[in-house]
Parts: sequence; structure tokens; C-alpha cells
Amino acid sequence: MEIIDGNQIAAAIVHELKAEVATLTGRQPCIALVRVGEDPASVSYVKKKQVMAAEIGIESRLILPPATIPQAELFALIDQLNADEGVDGILVQSPLPKGIDEVAVFRRIAAHKDVDGFHTLNLGKLAQEDDTGFVACTPAGIMELLRRSGVSLSGKHVVVLGRSLIVGKPAALLAVQRKAWANATVTICHSQTTNLPAITRQADVLIAAIGKAEFVTADMVKPGAIVIDVGVSRVPDATKKSGYRLTGDVHFPSVSPLCAKITPVPGGVGPMTVAMLMKNTVKARRLNQST
Amino acid sequence: MEIIDGNQIAAAIVHELKAEVATLTGRQPCIALVRVGEDPASVSYVKKKQVMAAEIGIESRLILPPATIPQAELFALIDQLNADEGVDGILVQSPLPKGIDEVAVFRRIAAHKDVDGFHTLNLGKLAQEDDTGFVACTPAGIMELLRRSGVSLSGKHVVVLGRSLIVGKPAALLAVQRKAWANATVTICHSQTTNLPAITRQADVLIAAIGKAEFVTADMVKPGAIVIDVGVSRVPDATKKSGYRLTGDVHFPSVSPLCAKITPVPGGVGPMTVAMLMKNTVKARRLNQST
Repeated sequence: MEIIDGNQIAAAIVHELKAEVATLTGRQPCIALVRVGEDPASVSYVKKKQVMAAEIGIESRLILPPATIPQAELFALIDQLNADEGVDGILVQSPLPKGIDEVAVFRRIAAHKDVDGFHTLNLGKLAQEDDTGFVACTPAGIMELLRRSGVSLSGKHVVVLGRSLIVGKPAALLAVQRKAWANATVTICHSQTTNLPAITRQADVLIAAIGKAEFVTADMVKPGAIVIDVGVSRVPDATKKSGYRLTGDVHFPSVSPLCAKITPVPGGVGPMTVAMLMKNTVKARRLNQST
Repeated sequence: MEIIDGNQIAAAIVHELKAEVATLTGRQPCIALVRVGEDPASVSYVKKKQVMAAEIGIESRLILPPATIPQAELFALIDQLNADEGVDGILVQSPLPKGIDEVAVFRRIAAHKDVDGFHTLNLGKLAQEDDTGFVACTPAGIMELLRRSGVSLSGKHVVVLGRSLIVGKPAALLAVQRKAWANATVTICHSQTTNLPAITRQADVLIAAIGKAEFVTADMVKPGAIVIDVGVSRVPDATKKSGYRLTGDVHFPSVSPLCAKITPVPGGVGPMTVAMLMKNTVKARRLNQST
């Protein structure tokens, strides 16, 4: 059994992006990081993005409207960033305060600056296998993890557990693409799936993305499978100073001995998400070369 | 075994649309039918669309540029139709003459007039389960066939054979939606799938959309399955006056006795496609009520 080291792979991507940015002519790539309010998790995530951007040579503009900002003003702010030729990518940190329509906000971001890959047009481009779009960072990160761990999906059966817009569906659409590294047979299952273990046990590659702590148990996994654990949950743990520990959608102690490869939580998919955001920003800069 | 009668179900939809159009205030819905050149199959398809539109009370505008039209002029024509407030839907009949980029032409059509459902934005909306978009007519027709035949997909395993943009992928995205009539577990398989019969034999509902005559044989189908045959191929047949007969992706003589329900070719999915085009046009008119 091999543990796929997301931190190491993310670091390799950061290293490559740094080298790539160094070769760019003209101004640096630039990402606008919009954080509404002071949600502690958001503060920490945005900080991480800032630090990684700086390391790569990506300029980041931190924009910090108060939690009380009216939606119309947030729209106006996004419109301004959309029009700003010095900004390549725009990230609005989720979650947004209550009363703001998150989907509407994400759609307000111009598709060609949507480095988070949540825009309807970018999802459509993914389905159309049009590489001029941006793929959502978590599923893009999963594919990078697999590729860089020497896993070819071609002809394999990939089972995606979860049909979310941000992970499940785009991961399925990526794995089924007519690309040498993709070409998988793909099954999407979810809360309404009948006889789930019989489906997940068929997976050569199982991607668990439902956000239920330790839901995937040994009886649901085929020996020799590759397991990608996207979930991050806090579970109470009296042995920890904080009183909790982080865990994924997979019951790691019982499942990992069965696997050919598995991602841990934390340190698996998580670090990849920020790295792919940076990769999308550099891509946006290249597509936006004219300025 | 029950044969699903696509002609009958399409006729019921036409009947309903006719009643719906009669209640609309203001002008009739209007579809622009653009046929480039004189391809005989296209002539016949467009004629069918005209006739059905007239029956429902949809105005159709036939636009017949010559096969030699430069792409830029075709774009200009589409731009004009996009801007025309009297036109609700635009259909450009496929195939287009060589030298014209079909994908670029389809994308030129304004998303809110894209009654064929091929636009990137509409595919993205389908993935996002946003019902303000247009779903491609063939997969939408498949879902109508199933619903109106009393088949609930919820918790069922739908296997889609084929990953095309126009049928396979949108059919999979429809079947997996969080809707009472959908909620299926969905597998997409294709030419690179390993051990295909073992996958298709799991299907409660098998949707065959690969365009290979009589590819699906009895050993690939679970007894009691529901089979939807999307393919249409001509195969030589000396007993026919024309020298050929039409057949689907399914070997009907051996597979149909196994099935709970099956669509024939012709007379199954085919008639639904035009009916759904009309349904999309009426929807476009409703969304375009302001004019």
C-alpha cells in the first residue's frame, strides 16, 4: 500500500509554476482574493492562497469587504475586477455571509477570470472537452494526483461517490474524457444509490466526495483499488488537545491496508486544491497575454 | 415485453404543445430553421420540423443559404437572428458543408435561443441542474419517453453506452440529477471500456448511443431491463426495395425478448427529437415573453 503524498505533489506543482512564471514576459500574473467578512476558516484559507501566490511569483490583491456588504455592492466590486485588465483571476472565498446568493456571485465573475472553475460556461467547456476553460480546483487536483502517482485511468472503472457540482460531477466528466490519461468508464453514485457497496466494490479508482466522516468502509472497497478521499470532517477526539481530529470520507485504518494507493486526510487532496488555483491563475495570465 | 411507441408519445407532446401555444398571449412562438445547401437528409429533416411547427402553431422561418456561403456570412446571419426579437429559437441543421466549423456555428447562436441545446452555457446549466437552460433534444426526448412510459429512474442503475456531447453525456447528466424522476446511479461506458458486457448487464435502464448497427446483443442485457436505442444505421437488405433497412445500436430480434420495455428503430427515440425541439421553442417563447 502506498500513501499518495498530496503535500509533496503540490510542492512539485508550485515549483513548476514558479519556473513557468519566471519565463513570462510583461507583468506578473495577478489574482484578486475577495474575502467577505472575518470567518476564521476563510481567513486561514485566503492567507494560504496569498502565501502560495507569493512563492510562485503571482501578485495577489486582497479585497476585504465587510460581512454587511449588500449583494449589489459585491456585484459592483466583481464587475470592476472583471473590467480590470491587470487582474487575471478572481477568487471569491466561500462561504459567503447569509443573505448573499453564492451561486449568483460566482456567476458574476467573468468566465475568463473564473480560476475557481465554478462558472456555468467553464463547466460546459469541461463537458465539451474544451481546454480553453477552467476546471474546478479540487477535481483538477485529483486528476493531477493520479497522473503524478503513475495511475493511468484508461479502461479503468472510476466510481465517484457524490454528485456535487464542485467535485463529483466535474471529476466524472474529467475521467471520461477522450484523453490518453482519462478514457475511464465512470459511475456516479450518491445518496439515492441502491446497493452502494456492490457498486463501489467495482471501482479500480474510488473517489469519495460526500462529506460524511469515515463513510467508506472495508467492505465497500475492492482489494488493490486506488482510493481518493476528498472529504474533510472534524470528529471529536479526546486524545487531541483541540478535542477533535480531521478525517475523510474513508475509514482509513480499515480501508488503507486493502488499497494499492490511497490519499490521506489531511495531506492528500487538500493541498492540491490551492496548487490548482495557482495553476489556473497562470493559465489565465497566458490566455490574457495581450495586456 | 412492451415496445415503447415513440410516435405515439411524440404525438401526445405535440397535442399538449398545441394546447399550450393556444393559451399564449401576444405573437406566436417562432423558430428560424437555417439549412445550408441541399443535403437530401437535411431537406427532409427540416421539412419535418416545419410541418410539426405548423401543426403546433409555431411560426417557422426557413432560411436557405447556399452550400458555398462563407463562414463569416453564416455568422452574420446568425447574429441577425440573435438580435431579432421576433425569433425565439434558432436551429442550424447539421451537417454543415465542409470548411465550416460546426462547433463555432453552434456556439454563435445566442444561448437563450439555442433550442437545440448544444451551446456550452446550456450544457453547463444542465450539469448545474439549472432549468432555465435548454437540454439537447435527443437526451431530453429519452427522459420524456421513460417518464411517459411509467419508468422511474430513482435508485435505478442507468448505463449509458456512448459519451457523445449530443446524447451520451447529457443523458448521463439528466439521469443523475437530484430530481424525483431522475436520481439514478449512472455509468458511462464507451469504446475504451474494459469488459463492456459485464457493465451493460448491470443496467436497469440501458441507453445505447454509439451509432454501431446492432452492437448490443443479448449477452449484454440483463433480463427485465429497459432498453433505449438511440442509434440509427442503414444496413444492406436485399429484401427491401431500397436495398437497405434502418436499424439501431441494439440487435432487436435477440434483445427484445429479454426486456421489460424497449424502443424500436425507427419509431422510438427518433420522433421524440423533433417534438422536444418544439417543446424547447415554446419554452424559449415563454422565457422571451417580454416581446
